[in-house]
Amino acid sequence: MSILVVGSIGLDHVETPFGTADAVVGGSAVFFGAAASIFTPVQVVGVVGSDYPMDRLGFLKEKGADLSGIETEEGESFRWTGRYGSDLSDCTTIATELGVFAHFKPRIPEHFRDARRVFLGNIDPVLQLDVLDQVREPELIACDTMNFWIERSRDALLEVIRRVHILLVNDAEARQLAGESNLLKAARWIQAQGPEWVVVKKGEHGAVLFGDESIFFVPGYPLEDVFDPTGAGDSFAGGFMGYLDWSGGRTGEDFRRAMVYGSALGSYAVEAFSVDRLKDLTPDQVMDRLRQFRDITAFEVEVDVARNG
Amino acid sequence: MSILVVGSIGLDHVETPFGTADAVVGGSAVFFGAAASIFTPVQVVGVVGSDYPMDRLGFLKEKGADLSGIETEEGESFRWTGRYGSDLSDCTTIATELGVFAHFKPRIPEHFRDARRVFLGNIDPVLQLDVLDQVREPELIACDTMNFWIERSRDALLEVIRRVHILLVNDAEARQLAGESNLLKAARWIQAQGPEWVVVKKGEHGAVLFGDESIFFVPGYPLEDVFDPTGAGDSFAGGFMGYLDWSGGRTGEDFRRAMVYGSALGSYAVEAFSVDRLKDLTPDQVMDRLRQFRDITAFEVEVDVARNG
Repeated sequence: MSILVVGSIGLDHVETPFGTADAVVGGSAVFFGAAASIFTPVQVVGVVGSDYPMDRLGFLKEKGADLSGIETEEGESFRWTGRYGSDLSDCTTIATELGVFAHFKPRIPEHFRDARRVFLGNIDPVLQLDVLDQVREPELIACDTMNFWIERSRDALLEVIRRVHILLVNDAEARQLAGESNLLKAARWIQAQGPEWVVVKKGEHGAVLFGDESIFFVPGYPLEDVFDPTGAGDSFAGGFMGYLDWSGGRTGEDFRRAMVYGSALGSYAVEAFSVDRLKDLTPDQVMDRLRQFRDITAFEVEVDVARNG
Repeated sequence: MSILVVGSIGLDHVETPFGTADAVVGGSAVFFGAAASIFTPVQVVGVVGSDYPMDRLGFLKEKGADLSGIETEEGESFRWTGRYGSDLSDCTTIATELGVFAHFKPRIPEHFRDARRVFLGNIDPVLQLDVLDQVREPELIACDTMNFWIERSRDALLEVIRRVHILLVNDAEARQLAGESNLLKAARWIQAQGPEWVVVKKGEHGAVLFGDESIFFVPGYPLEDVFDPTGAGDSFAGGFMGYLDWSGGRTGEDFRRAMVYGSALGSYAVEAFSVDRLKDLTPDQVMDRLRQFRDITAFEVEVDVARNG
């Protein structure tokens, strides 16, 4: 199978306590693609300016991705500048220059329109709806969003949410979207709007999957050195959707494993700037981390019943 | 076996979005005792004022606790007033009236001095050391502390830490104590000072056990209604130490299960004011929650290796 991803493609300037990266490739479609293409071919739709170093996306092609849905427009590429503080959990956006991304109008090439799995990266919900109108028979659609759209484009966002199977958001976004501070209630509210599955990303605290009946937690992977958190969420989404596409499964067990694959990819992504750590990541390394997630969460429920005295 | 606990015993005034509780029993020794006595007899050492409603600790006696180490001094009991905001993760201390607790000098009764398992609640590290000098052959000692002692009594605290097997702290305290923002590095630093085990409590985000070689995560139990978070940490400690005492085990597997028992007790504690939910909690209910923790964390690592394409 394969996955269609529509999202941003840009150049990031990132400052962390460990160093600075200038004009490195970034954006939701790039991180998602880098992670998902470890599992499955990815079809990428996005827009870049005439200044974009397309050769730096060559690694995606080598992993089987189809980049023919990336349009090049006259003008500047999307650029984002961010700075992380000493504990890396706070990020300050210094500048966002939309460039050609300001007028992005996703055009899904004819040969992508039969995509069965779709990931709608964090873009204007109106554009996300536009994408959904262009694909013919998607069977598994996931989408991401952010506080900006929750505040300014709530109606369109709710319409998107009605039409997707999976919503991936962070905990603050889930609470904001539902207007509910209790995360469990917030997730149940979102599910009632449409998505069968809600994935709540909590950064260093891990991620939670809310399904029809069950809830599943995966912790944040304990890293001694988080180098650059940029793209962790999209890399998570890439691992999550990539695994689901590759395995073809749709059971609760499949979704649980997808959560751990997502966490594995997210944890690798933050070990280096940009997509550097994902470029050469091997399936064996991914499986190693999956086993480590298993090690750090496994326990046996004893059959003896605790008793007083 | 049994466990000796030394800590605060007081009266709490708690305000939450769901209601107010006035002059209810609280303090680290009370919450710890309420949780641990589900598993094992608890020996309680502390001080109360002549105004203290000792009959309200009768439930501890019924569960097999020995309260003969609680001294009554002329004067007012320790009182704490706290207020929780709408998301219940922020607590503001409105007032702390130490009363007789200001001059607390733990005297371990002769018949408690052979205690093999000891929990040092969050009190002045100088007093914690004093307790350690009074017990003869403890084989498993755990202690708690807080930012106040880390700042003002660091040397004594480090001496305590050198002498205990387990340190239980929250994530901010672990970082502050180690002077290190990365939690994994902070825990490793603490372990290098003495404790074989470091338990980091992260509130709604769960808890982490750092052992000799391995790390174990347990998530926060997903509750729709957290009623009053007061005492969650001490209830966790009570479940954790209570299970270890009851089982007698000291392997990594035993400590992992102890983490889940601690989480189960902590999650029950926050379902009502004070120790109300713990009073009548049955071993079956504890086991139920243990199985639920298992349900929300279980996944299978597939043997197939993920592959590109």
